[in-house]
Amino acid sequence: MADFFTLRTVTWADGKVKMIDQTALPTRLSYVTYAAPDQVAAAIRTMVVRGAPAIGVAAAMGVALAARRSKAAKLPELMRDLEDAAAMLRSTRPTAVNLFWGIDRVMARARAATSVREAREAVAEEAQAMEEEDVAVNRKLGANGAELIRDGETVLTQCNAGALATVGYGTALGVVRAAVESGKLVKVLVPETRPALQGARLTAYELVRDRISCTLISDTAVGHMLSLGRVDRVIVGADRITRDGYVFNKIGTYQEAVLARRHGVPFHPAAPRSTFDLGRSHDQVTIEERGAEEVVKVRGRRIAPKGIPVANPAFDMTPPELVTSMITERGVLAPPFEETIPRLMS
Amino acid sequence: MADFFTLRTVTWADGKVKMIDQTALPTRLSYVTYAAPDQVAAAIRTMVVRGAPAIGVAAAMGVALAARRSKAAKLPELMRDLEDAAAMLRSTRPTAVNLFWGIDRVMARARAATSVREAREAVAEEAQAMEEEDVAVNRKLGANGAELIRDGETVLTQCNAGALATVGYGTALGVVRAAVESGKLVKVLVPETRPALQGARLTAYELVRDRISCTLISDTAVGHMLSLGRVDRVIVGADRITRDGYVFNKIGTYQEAVLARRHGVPFHPAAPRSTFDLGRSHDQVTIEERGAEEVVKVRGRRIAPKGIPVANPAFDMTPPELVTSMITERGVLAPPFEETIPRLMS
Repeated sequence: MADFFTLRTVTWADGKVKMIDQTALPTRLSYVTYAAPDQVAAAIRTMVVRGAPAIGVAAAMGVALAARRSKAAKLPELMRDLEDAAAMLRSTRPTAVNLFWGIDRVMARARAATSVREAREAVAEEAQAMEEEDVAVNRKLGANGAELIRDGETVLTQCNAGALATVGYGTALGVVRAAVESGKLVKVLVPETRPALQGARLTAYELVRDRISCTLISDTAVGHMLSLGRVDRVIVGADRITRDGYVFNKIGTYQEAVLARRHGVPFHPAAPRSTFDLGRSHDQVTIEERGAEEVVKVRGRRIAPKGIPVANPAFDMTPPELVTSMITERGVLAPPFEETIPRLMS
Repeated sequence: MADFFTLRTVTWADGKVKMIDQTALPTRLSYVTYAAPDQVAAAIRTMVVRGAPAIGVAAAMGVALAARRSKAAKLPELMRDLEDAAAMLRSTRPTAVNLFWGIDRVMARARAATSVREAREAVAEEAQAMEEEDVAVNRKLGANGAELIRDGETVLTQCNAGALATVGYGTALGVVRAAVESGKLVKVLVPETRPALQGARLTAYELVRDRISCTLISDTAVGHMLSLGRVDRVIVGADRITRDGYVFNKIGTYQEAVLARRHGVPFHPAAPRSTFDLGRSHDQVTIEERGAEEVVKVRGRRIAPKGIPVANPAFDMTPPELVTSMITERGVLAPPFEETIPRLMS
């Protein structure tokens, strides 16, 4: 069995949070270590760490840092400090539900505690448990998805739903890794994914490092590649899947789904249960609009004239009718998703 | 009437070819002047000049430079020099038919000449006539297309089919200019158009300079914008339209056409008659594959890991069933295009 990408994207180390600095990739593999929750919030906002599952764990660890640093002598005081940190962390990015899920999970442990000491320990323990769970969940999800893949397939993805979007192993790329581990030949077609280039910078980095066969394309070449019959399957991650089966994921996912449908190619989001949001339907989700700088500059170089207005939606929404099936750690969900999603979550 | 973008992209000046250096835009407006045909060939290959109509005129001027420089004393000798230059210029880029059309037009004038002096003069005269015609043709095409546009529309384009893709005024952006000149409010949605970024660098530059309302987006946001109802019409250029109505244009055009159809938005290529190729059906066209450097680097900055394989098709093919109508200087062509295209060309 191949020894895939064993680095941890986010890890708890000696009471601090250690992360791969994803803004430095693919040029440089470097780590940052944070001892304060506002540093974690800034890292999420600036995409030092990104990817729905990874920011869920990072935010939980941010609350754990607040618990460590709090000088509170009494429980209500500690809880106020934790609620402050949680509010700050929740405000970083609106679309991926895992962020809220991660914070809610550690906060629930804190609320159940009966002493300051117990709350501190419970929060740190829960955050570390989430770190371990993430890799285990992705391996299960990967194994479930790998059964769909035939030997020799080319999988088109979008953005990075890999080890770097999670603690390790990945969701969409976890499926690819599991298929390769099971002895299948799989090739990955990687759109660069402007504006933040997570495909070119991160997915390409992971796959080259793991010696998984891959080809980088511009985002403009997705339709052309599908029209030439060069794609057998589309597998992407997800930032939020609502109870009515709508998939919110990195901008560009929706157009891949439309194009896949036109060419009769199956389209699968791959996501853990923590990405499913039973509390919301598709019209209740905020799509983050990010700054113009990401579009008018690439790695610091200006590519557009000064004064040009920009729209920079970071995510889009794929309706359930374009989804073939959804890959989760509990199995592969078939339509109708408004029935199979509540069953998954029960 | 607004005084739009009066710069000439390619012009004949004192027996030389003067061009805007499009690789320096949008940062710097600078010109290059060439006296030899191999310089023009290199400029076409490296996209100092690009855009189907502009490279047609540039290549014709390249032949005219060969005629000026030739030391031939007799006509067959001159014709050999011109054929050599023509062959070199034809080999620069395979997809846009205007390149071949431009060269064929000046070569026909040379072949009809009865002396070296007459041939030299005829070639230079024809190339200069083509320069003037280009702007006149685009103004007619623009006026024809402008009739389709309702006041207040948002037009999605792709790449640059503007003044910078022609001698002046533009094809797709010529339609926008004509609509604005006729008093309509038109907004343009500009995808950056990776890998060479003609949207971000050139279309944005032209529109900002002409104070035409525009918004820049990543190529990944095209489908999302259409899904939000923010696009009323798609107008793109073309590099070659075959007799069976297939449209070869910048990579990313095909996916715009598919997405436009899904959202019930009309899709129009805008192209002069010189872009139509009665001699070929869609299966007889070569789609240029360009180097990996364009994809793995942006304005000199590396964005992908070393060793990553790349596919970089420069064009794609949109089938006639996705085309609402085609805008030309002789009017707007409706389907069935296999009937209306031969009529256009007769």
